[in-house]
Amino acid sequence: MSTLEALWTELADVKDELALRDWFPGTSGNLSIKVSDDPLNFLVTASGKDKRRRTNEDFLLVDAEGIAVDPTHLRASAETGLHAKVYQLTDAGCCLHVHTVDNNVISELYGDEGQITFRGQELIKAFNIWEEDGAITVPIIENYADLKTLAECFGTVIGPDTRAVLIRNHGITVWGRSGFEAKKHLEALEFLFSYHIKLKSLQKLHDGQPSLI
Amino acid sequence: MSTLEALWTELADVKDELALRDWFPGTSGNLSIKVSDDPLNFLVTASGKDKRRRTNEDFLLVDAEGIAVDPTHLRASAETGLHAKVYQLTDAGCCLHVHTVDNNVISELYGDEGQITFRGQELIKAFNIWEEDGAITVPIIENYADLKTLAECFGTVIGPDTRAVLIRNHGITVWGRSGFEAKKHLEALEFLFSYHIKLKSLQKLHDGQPSLI
Amino acid sequence: MSTLEALWTELADVKDELALRDWFPGTSGNLSIKVSDDPLNFLVTASGKDKRRRTNEDFLLVDAEGIAVDPTHLRASAETGLHAKVYQLTDAGCCLHVHTVDNNVISELYGDEGQITFRGQELIKAFNIWEEDGAITVPIIENYADLKTLAECFGTVIGPDTRAVLIRNHGITVWGRSGFEAKKHLEALEFLFSYHIKLKSLQKLHDGQPSLI
Amino acid sequence: MSTLEALWTELADVKDELALRDWFPGTSGNLSIKVSDDPLNFLVTASGKDKRRRTNEDFLLVDAEGIAVDPTHLRASAETGLHAKVYQLTDAGCCLHVHTVDNNVISELYGDEGQITFRGQELIKAFNIWEEDGAITVPIIENYADLKTLAECFGTVIGPDTRAVLIRNHGITVWGRSGFEAKKHLEALEFLFSYHIKLKSLQKLHDGQPSLI
Repeated sequence: MSTLEALWTELADVKDELALRDWFPGTSGNLSIKVSDDPLNFLVTASGKDKRRRTNEDFLLVDAEGIAVDPTHLRASAETGLHAKVYQLTDAGCCLHVHTVDNNVISELYGDEGQITFRGQELIKAFNIWEEDGAITVPIIENYADLKTLAECFGTVIGPDTRAVLIRNHGITVWGRSGFEAKKHLEALEFLFSYHIKLKSLQKLHDGQPSLI
Repeated sequence: MSTLEALWTELADVKDELALRDWFPGTSGNLSIKVSDDPLNFLVTASGKDKRRRTNEDFLLVDAEGIAVDPTHLRASAETGLHAKVYQLTDAGCCLHVHTVDNNVISELYGDEGQITFRGQELIKAFNIWEEDGAITVPIIENYADLKTLAECFGTVIGPDTRAVLIRNHGITVWGRSGFEAKKHLEALEFLFSYHIKLKSLQKLHDGQPSLI
Repeated sequence: MSTLEALWTELADVKDELALRDWFPGTSGNLSIKVSDDPLNFLVTASGKDKRRRTNEDFLLVDAEGIAVDPTHLRASAETGLHAKVYQLTDAGCCLHVHTVDNNVISELYGDEGQITFRGQELIKAFNIWEEDGAITVPIIENYADLKTLAECFGTVIGPDTRAVLIRNHGITVWGRSGFEAKKHLEALEFLFSYHIKLKSLQKLHDGQPSLI
Repeated sequence: MSTLEALWTELADVKDELALRDWFPGTSGNLSIKVSDDPLNFLVTASGKDKRRRTNEDFLLVDAEGIAVDPTHLRASAETGLHAKVYQLTDAGCCLHVHTVDNNVISELYGDEGQITFRGQELIKAFNIWEEDGAITVPIIENYADLKTLAECFGTVIGPDTRAVLIRNHGITVWGRSGFEAKKHLEALEFLFSYHIKLKSLQKLHDGQPSLI
């Protein structure tokens, strides 16, 4: 199996697993995996597919501009530009964009504040953060309809410790050095989002309990 | 495989997928797919089946009046008239009716207002709406026990941009040009309903946050 | 396949489906199917099994007293007496007892009132109730530790229209003429419980909305 | 099949089942099964694995100090010390550590009180508690970053009736004499946690209802 085939399989396996969780509602979401750095080439989701099916037209190889490397009738996902940004600004090898009810709720609840920070949670170790008072911050940006404006704004919030960006009412984009690590980061964040929402809905009901997060 | 067989398989696949999500509680729900326009013929769910099983008696071919085209011992779903309305008034090729806890909760919460509108959500693109301030409105009608009255009322709320109708405490009816598109619309609406309910349950708990939707 | 084998298979299929939904937490729950009326014989769950496994020791044949008909090392479920009551007092052919978070929450919320009634819900048709203002009432009894007292109290609340009984913080017992009908009744009630809980958690947050159920 | 192979299979089966429920988010969680008492040897999860995959490198055999019994490139889970404590202080044969949203929410809501007690719930019988007013108490300890301090604190809260310990925002550790019993205890507790959270979120909305748990 060539490297390209191995990376295709790695990405398709991640897609299958996320699809099983229903994390691509209404054909939303897209995924990519880096194939080469110089020039930047990556496999990215073809547009408009049913992500519960596994076919040999699920991904196509594109360059840093999101242009298909080989002639194809497939159209790269409209959000390919966000994936390119991630590969240009970080050490990511794989990048996932999914919508869940909980990540969209968090993006709206904290959209005005522009970020959400988690600390004091064991799951933070999924980001290889081991300090006693370690914290993970996820920036939240507005959902600009113009995809070029969106990609630019997206790029400005990615710092050295950023592993994910929430777009307001437009899901999360998360990455890691491999498909395995990207999925680990995504699972940990979704857990933290769900935990936060559930705790928040209870905190005013628990007598004498101060704000919990 | 004949066209009829291909359409049967398309509908059966959609049914399997929705059944896996438990969207047919208590044998509720029904599905149809259009076979011909003139005269109108469509495959529709036979009444009272366990929708988790896949059998060759799951559907029957009916005409615009809901009458079986060929002699059969099968009884068409009691709500076949709603499906006929959809094919007569829209460009639908497939029509799905399902009950979920969340679509019923939305139908009751907004039943008096007669509709619910979503805007500012990326998932709206599932309806091929790309404008910056695009919106999708779902009418909500009362659940008349008389099925003829129900079908008439149902027909009156379907406009050129309507893709779905909620019946109060009686699930959602949603359509698309194909099984794939109908399912895409359904998934997107269920996502929006769940998102709305979860956000609503939190909004009064978030200091200084105005009404969010 | 003999009648007994056919009934065993029917019950095992229902068990598999409910187990997939995680409706037997901590090995709780039990199921039965009637084999003969005179004398009353029914297959009932053997005690303490992992209900996610399908084995040929999952059920045993017992009589009206819950005594094994044939010599066996298996022990009938401690709650076999409730199943016997159902067969003696109704036309049930199959009886299911399961714990879900939502049925236990409903049993506690309405335990003092001794019952919960649903009306104005399409899902009520799962109970073959078609009137415009039809209603389904589920009695709720206290969870007596003494199983004989529990069975007696259980018997006193079963009227001609009763299809299920909630025991306070001890799950639901529901029945139907066949495995298919018992499962249909169970699914419809679980849907109504979940709907009620979700709507209730929102109703005070919706301005100007009166009590909804 | 040797005893070691049988125990490996038992543990791998439990892992598969918990993984299907998504109870190992972000590669969190770990499991072990006792192989011998004198000296204490047990199979424990290798660090950092994707628990949805089943491989022959999922577990390794360690001693009471958590040191690998045979030469291996595998690293034992960082929390192996907690498993050793359980085997030293109880009659456990299998020990499970998982994160769920609900067990973490409970650990935070009741962290200051240092424990949570359930009574009046049928599911308590999963712990072989049959008295009418039986109760099960789960201690909650702080999540010390230093694993040695954590293990010591963990050991101090384990009494003769303890079957599980919650670590604040760090999941639950639960045990039983076998994999089957450990899983039964875990399922019962997760059910009780989910029930408690859902009931709590409703209790202030139910007129005239006193504090329910």
